[in-house]
Amino acid sequence: MAICFLSPSKPVTFSPSLQNKRPPPLLRCNFALPTIATTEPEPVYTSVRSFAPATVANLGPGFDFLGCAVDGLGDFVAVRIDPSVHPGEISISDITGTHASKKLSKNPLWNCATIAAIAAMKMLNIRSVGLSLTLEKGLPLGSGLGSSAASAAAAVVAVNEIFGGKLQVKDLVRAGLESEAKVSGYHADNIAPAIMGGFVLIRNYNPLELMSLNFPEEKEIFFVLVSPDFEAPTKKMRAALPAEVGIPHHVWNCSQAGALVASVLQGDLVGLGKALSNDKIVEPKRAPLIPGMEEVKKAAISAGAFGCTISGAGPTAVAVIDDEERGKEIGEKMVEAFLKEGNLKAVAMVKRLDRVGARLVGSVPT
Amino acid sequence: MAICFLSPSKPVTFSPSLQNKRPPPLLRCNFALPTIATTEPEPVYTSVRSFAPATVANLGPGFDFLGCAVDGLGDFVAVRIDPSVHPGEISISDITGTHASKKLSKNPLWNCATIAAIAAMKMLNIRSVGLSLTLEKGLPLGSGLGSSAASAAAAVVAVNEIFGGKLQVKDLVRAGLESEAKVSGYHADNIAPAIMGGFVLIRNYNPLELMSLNFPEEKEIFFVLVSPDFEAPTKKMRAALPAEVGIPHHVWNCSQAGALVASVLQGDLVGLGKALSNDKIVEPKRAPLIPGMEEVKKAAISAGAFGCTISGAGPTAVAVIDDEERGKEIGEKMVEAFLKEGNLKAVAMVKRLDRVGARLVGSVPT
Repeated sequence: MAICFLSPSKPVTFSPSLQNKRPPPLLRCNFALPTIATTEPEPVYTSVRSFAPATVANLGPGFDFLGCAVDGLGDFVAVRIDPSVHPGEISISDITGTHASKKLSKNPLWNCATIAAIAAMKMLNIRSVGLSLTLEKGLPLGSGLGSSAASAAAAVVAVNEIFGGKLQVKDLVRAGLESEAKVSGYHADNIAPAIMGGFVLIRNYNPLELMSLNFPEEKEIFFVLVSPDFEAPTKKMRAALPAEVGIPHHVWNCSQAGALVASVLQGDLVGLGKALSNDKIVEPKRAPLIPGMEEVKKAAISAGAFGCTISGAGPTAVAVIDDEERGKEIGEKMVEAFLKEGNLKAVAMVKRLDRVGARLVGSVPT
Repeated sequence: MAICFLSPSKPVTFSPSLQNKRPPPLLRCNFALPTIATTEPEPVYTSVRSFAPATVANLGPGFDFLGCAVDGLGDFVAVRIDPSVHPGEISISDITGTHASKKLSKNPLWNCATIAAIAAMKMLNIRSVGLSLTLEKGLPLGSGLGSSAASAAAAVVAVNEIFGGKLQVKDLVRAGLESEAKVSGYHADNIAPAIMGGFVLIRNYNPLELMSLNFPEEKEIFFVLVSPDFEAPTKKMRAALPAEVGIPHHVWNCSQAGALVASVLQGDLVGLGKALSNDKIVEPKRAPLIPGMEEVKKAAISAGAFGCTISGAGPTAVAVIDDEERGKEIGEKMVEAFLKEGNLKAVAMVKRLDRVGARLVGSVPT
C-alpha cells in the first residue's frame, strides 16, 4: 500500500495521443497492455457505482505472493458517461469519503483509481466516449490494508461494467497492476484479491498467473485489524528486508507458506493462524519498526487469536479468529498493547473474509 | 537418501544397558525419544512382514519439506520373535532382495532398518522380548528414491505391529527419523511419506508437525522415475546448494511451493507439474552435477510430461503425467536423453502415487 502521490492540481485529462510519445519514466504506462476489445464496445450504462474491498497482503510467510480480501471495508468509485470530457479520456469529478485526503491527486495520471481506469479503457479500446469518476475513500492511506489497490480495483470494475463487462478477471488485475506499479510497486498481492475476493496466490507475473484459493464456504474466518496512528511507508518497510536469506530460513518460510496455503484450502483456522505467525524472514525485520508490534502480536495470541502478523507492509496488525465477539475482545487487547507498549493510539475492526471482490453496487442503464 | 554405512561385520545386538552410557557420536541414538508405552506391550504376532514404499522428496520448490510415496516399489522387512536374541534386543538375520548390497551393514546399530527398529522398541519400552529382522531391499541405494527411509519405515511398522500397534503415526515417523538422521540427515521428507503414504508436508520438527496433503481419490497421478547409472552422493548434492538466496528467488520459490501444495490438494496435475518444474534455487545448482539432467527434463516436458525435476538429491529424474502409457513413452525419451546427453545408461519406471504408506503385508499370530 502506498500513498497516491502528492498534489492536487487542476484536473488533467488523459489523451490517447500520448500513447505514441514516451511519457516521463515515473508515470510511464505499460503500453504493452493488450487491447482486448477488437471493436470498441458501446456503453451499456450511463453511470455505475462499484465497490472494492480492503485487502491483507503477505499474510506472514505469503510475503509478496499471497493476499486476501476483507468484507465491509473498502473504496467506492462512481463512473459516468460525461459528454463534457474528451472522448477516450477520463477526468476526476470528486474525491469524497471518510478518508478523502489532499494526498490523493485529482490528476487522472497520478491517481490510483484513474491510472487503473485508463489502463482498462485502453484494453477496451475506448475512443468515442469520455468518462468522469468520483472516488469515495473508505480506506485510510498507508495503513497496510491495500488502500491504493481498492481504489484501482473499484475503478477498473466500474469502467469494465459501464462498457458491458468485456474484460476477463485477469485483464482487470493487469489493469489494476498498472496502477499499483506506479504507486507501490509491481505486486499483485493486494490488487488481485481486491478484484477477485477471497485468498489469491500470485503464481507468476510473466505471464500473469493467479490462483484463487477457496476457503470453504461453510467455514467462517474473522480478521481482527488493528491500525495504529503511525506511518510505515512501504519504501522504508521494504528497505528493512534482508537482501538474502539463509537456506534454513528459506526452507522454513517455504514450508510455512505451503502450510498456509493448505490451511486456507482445508479451512483449518488453527493451522492458518499458526502459519501466519511463523514468518522468520520479513516480520522479524519489520515488526521492530512499528512501535509495540511485537507485544501486540503476543497480546493477540494470548487473547486467543489463532495467529497474528503485520498486514501488508503495516502498520496495521492482523489477527485471525473464528468468532466475531472473540475477535472484538482480541482487538481490545491489541489496542491496549499498542498504547502501552508502543505509545500509539489504535483502532480495531473485526471483518469477515470478502469472497466476492470488486463489484458493481449500482447502475443506471443507457 | 543415503547409503547405510559401509561394513558388514558380525551381527551385533543392541543392549538397552547402552542407554545409560554415552554412545559414540556417529551412532548416538536420540535417547530423548519418549517412551510411549508405560507398560511393556505383549507381542500379538510371532512374526510379521511389512512393506514401505519408495518416496520422492523435494519435488522442486518443496525442497526439504515435501515428499510423496510411490506405489509398487519399496523395501520389505520381516521381523520375528526370536528367543535366541537377548530380550529387548534385535539382530539382523539376513539382507536379501534385488538390491541387497555389501554396503548395507548387518550391525543393527549401523543399519537403517534396525536403527529405526531400535528406536521403536525403545518407545514401546520392549525389555522382555528379543527380535530378529530380515531386510529385503527392493530399492537401490543412493538413487534419490528414499531407499534408507523405506527400510526404516518398514522396520518401525513391523516392530510396532508385532506388539499390537501401540504407536501413533507421528511416533513411527520420529522413530524413522532417528535412522534418517544417522544416514542422510535430519529430514523427514522421505520417512514421513514412506510411513504415511501420499503427499506429506513437514511443517515443523520441534515439535514434529506433519500435514497429509490429500491428492483427490478420484484422480490419477503417475510418476515417471528415470534412474541413471550414476552416483550422486547426498553430501555432494547438499554442498552444491547456495548458502543464501536473494529475496526475489526466495519469494518465487515460496510462491511455487504454495502453488504446488494447492495443486496437490486440488488434484490439478498441470499446476502440480508446472510448480514442480519451477524451482529456481536447488535444481539449477544440482542438475548440472548429474550428466544430461537438464536435457532429460527438456525431453520429458517436450514428450508431454506436466513437469519434471530431480527426485530427492538425485540422480533419479522424476516427471509427472496422468496416463500410464504416456508415462512409458515419456520415460523412453528421458532414458534416450540420459544416454545421448549424459552418456549414462538409465532405467525408467512408471508408478502411481502410494496413498497408504508403510503397512503390514503378512503376519503369524502368537
